[in-house]
Formats: sequence, structure tokens, C-alpha cells
Amino acid sequence: MERKKPLILITNDDGITSHGIKALVSVAKDFGDVCVIAPDKPQSGMGHAITVHSGITVSEASFPGAKLAFSCTGTPADCVKLGKYHLLQQKPDLCLSGINHGANMSLNVIYSGTMSAALEGALEGIPSIGISLCNNSTEAKMDTSAKVTRILIETFMSNKPDQNLCLNVNIPDVPFEEMKGLRFCRQGKGNWKEYYKERKHADGKEYLWLTGKFENFEPANSDTDLWALNNNYVSLVPVHGDMTNYKELEKGKEWELRWG
Amino acid sequence: MERKKPLILITNDDGITSHGIKALVSVAKDFGDVCVIAPDKPQSGMGHAITVHSGITVSEASFPGAKLAFSCTGTPADCVKLGKYHLLQQKPDLCLSGINHGANMSLNVIYSGTMSAALEGALEGIPSIGISLCNNSTEAKMDTSAKVTRILIETFMSNKPDQNLCLNVNIPDVPFEEMKGLRFCRQGKGNWKEYYKERKHADGKEYLWLTGKFENFEPANSDTDLWALNNNYVSLVPVHGDMTNYKELEKGKEWELRWG
Repeated sequence: MERKKPLILITNDDGITSHGIKALVSVAKDFGDVCVIAPDKPQSGMGHAITVHSGITVSEASFPGAKLAFSCTGTPADCVKLGKYHLLQQKPDLCLSGINHGANMSLNVIYSGTMSAALEGALEGIPSIGISLCNNSTEAKMDTSAKVTRILIETFMSNKPDQNLCLNVNIPDVPFEEMKGLRFCRQGKGNWKEYYKERKHADGKEYLWLTGKFENFEPANSDTDLWALNNNYVSLVPVHGDMTNYKELEKGKEWELRWG
Repeated sequence: MERKKPLILITNDDGITSHGIKALVSVAKDFGDVCVIAPDKPQSGMGHAITVHSGITVSEASFPGAKLAFSCTGTPADCVKLGKYHLLQQKPDLCLSGINHGANMSLNVIYSGTMSAALEGALEGIPSIGISLCNNSTEAKMDTSAKVTRILIETFMSNKPDQNLCLNVNIPDVPFEEMKGLRFCRQGKGNWKEYYKERKHADGKEYLWLTGKFENFEPANSDTDLWALNNNYVSLVPVHGDMTNYKELEKGKEWELRWG
């Protein structure tokens, strides 16, 4: 009896027409039946947003390499919920998000639409990977990232991941020959030092444009995605939705709590 | 010499005109100089979204009880970044987000605009509290929540919180006399079982409306916000931006990693 092919749900945050999602589908199709459900426009920086104040419009699309494809007005996390609860007849075996045009290492995970989709998949019991290339250009070449993604999917599937496993994978923007391999690590500590550019619209109305510089708070040697990427490794950080700060929880239990 | 009053930054995700933020300012003004920077429209479910694809327009506003007030077109997290990096001359001593019309316990923290603002504050070195009332009505009475918030701020400030402490506080929707006090706990495990209502716009175009039912995955007795709220405690969960799943990281280090 022929073994049923895995169902692979693919989404992203750069929108259904981006180069990155095309590269991802071109690889993933060799591992199973691909269904694409992706935003109809760029959704970078959307964090774990979901659409609660309006409806979501879904349109069928054609997508080379995919058995099924839909674009929608929702966020990346919406796309995964739509797949799980409305558009698909069975639960996907794997959820892939990306390939993102831009790094999502360190604290960027909390702002990332790419990673919100992957995390949403894992929360729904679908092993998931969010994949990002450390190059912000929408024109970035995806050949090397596609090659890495093939190795990554092979590795992921052969190690039989837990159904709630979510990996945040970042690929350094260097030639394949310079990469040193895959590396599990923790999320590095860092943050953005922001500033706002003051601009004017054509009608004279002022607006502010967010921009910033990422600061690495880790020491030179650390078992983090920041170190891994700086040393030409592909970083693999398992992430989850439990945001409890257990260290502060222990301290809190010593607090004097007032009442009444 | 007179001691300088603390500067308190206040935001929310229900927008600057909501009842909840008015209740919060009415209490917070007794603890320091209040600056309100809030979205000009509801931003529920925005997760940790930030505005990266467009500019943000900021308008000065008048707000009873606040020394300074601005509304803006940005997200809750944007409001805190704007305060820290552009609108304020000094770093706030405390950041408060809410009072949200609706619960943000358990997994809801990852979808919550209220909590994204509080977490953003803590990431910027400002001790922060996100406060939510477990009642989704935009007309919900805030008197009891205001009373709880006063006790909460007193408790928070008197215990000299770390500059990166972020508390996710949920207030049960019961009379004050029935509440049992403040309680530190971890984020409870749970998730939404979703479904989509199919609707049509006036022009006949179809859309989907997300709705769902929250499922509690915890046992009857657990040291979680879910248990605390069910037992009429005000739940205090310290949260942070490190999303690493350390348990899965240990497992991952045993994986056979392919390459080339």
C-alpha cells in the first residue's frame, strides 16, 4: 500500500508573491503535498497579530509546486488558523513559514510575522519551522537558502519532532561553502536602539518613520543564535508560547502583597 | 529638597477613548506625572506588531489627569517606543498598559496588544504592568478594577521591581468583596479552538469571521493564572521576551544534524 504523502502547510509574512515563499515551495514539494495559505500583502513586523476587528477575505490562487493555494487579507497567524480550522480537510503534518527576507534572530522573534505563523502551527500541534535569510532585500537571491532549507527539512523530519516543536531558523547571508552547518542554540539577548525619522507627506502633514540599530547584549562567546550567525552557522532556536519569566516568578513569591 | 515625581507612561490597545485607560489614568495620577501615548483606534489582537511599512502620525490630545497626552496611528508597542525614543525627555519610571476590556491570561498574552506594550516597556528598562479585566464588554464598569489597580501599583512600587520586570495582571470580573487578593503564578497552558463564521458583505462578497472557545489544558489544581482567576484571585504573571524552549533545546542537542 502506498504511504500517504505528508501534508505541508506553507505561509510567510512577506506575502504570497515574494521570492522567499516561492523558494520554500520549490523545495518543500519534494517532501509532500504543499498547501500555500499566505497574506495577500507584506505583513512584516506584525508580531502575533490576529484579525479580530474585521472579517478575512480568502481567494484561491495558483502557485507553482503547490496542490492548493490561497491568499487572504489576514495576518501570518491568521493564515495558519485558517488552514487548521477552515480550509484544509486534515491537519497538516508540517508547517513552514518563510523564507523571510530579513533576520529574525534574538528578540526579533517577538516582532516577526514569519515566526508568529510558525509558532501558531506548533500551538495547533503541527511541528513547525520559521525560516529567515539574514538579508533584508526583497530581491535577495534565495538559491543558497533553498539548498539549506532542503537539508533542514530532511534533518527535521528524520529526527521525528514533537508535535509542538517550533524552530526559529536563521540563515547567514554568505555563500554555502562558507557555512559551517546547523546549530541548536538559545535566543540571544539583544534589543533595538530606535530613532524616528521626521518626514512630511505631500500635503504637508508630518509623520514619523521607525528605524533603529540592533544591539547585541551577549558576551563574545555565547551559545546563542547571535553567536551562531556571526560564525556562519545556520541557527536553530526552539521557541514556545510560554512567556513566564520563572526567575522573576520566584522573586515575586517573596513580595509583600497588599490587599484591601 | 522636594523629591521628583515618578514619570508614568500609560498606553493601551483599546484606543485613547476607551473607558479602561481613563480608569487607569484616574488612579495612576496619584503616583506620579502621567503621560498618555495611546493608539487612536482599537488595536486588540495586534500581538507585538510594530509599524514598519508606513509612517506613524502623532497628535497631541487632552486627557483628564495626564500632564501630557498623544494619540497616534501606531500599535501599542509603537506607543511605548515613541515615548522612549521620541516624545519624552526622560525615561519613564513606570509603564502601565490597560485597563484592557477582556482577559489576557494564559496563551492570550501572545496575541495581546495590551501585553505587547507592557513587554516593550520592560525591554526598554521600564518596569511595566499590563492590566486586563476579564470582561470583554467595551461598556464594562471599571470601578472595581480601578480599586484593584491602586493596590497593585502600591504593591509594585513598594517592592522595588527590577527595571526589566513585566507583569501580566488579570482581574476577575467579580465584586471586590469576593476577590481574595493578588497572587503570583505562572502562565497556564491552554489554547483556542477556533471556528470561522461565513458572512457576506452588502456587495455579496464573502468573508470569514474568527471566533473560538478557550480550552484550559491545566489540571484542576495548578499554580497558574487560570486557576487563580477561577478562584477569584488577581493573577500576576511575570513575563519576558525570551521565547527559547529550553526543554526542546536540550533534546535538539541530541539530534543528528545533516549538512552538505
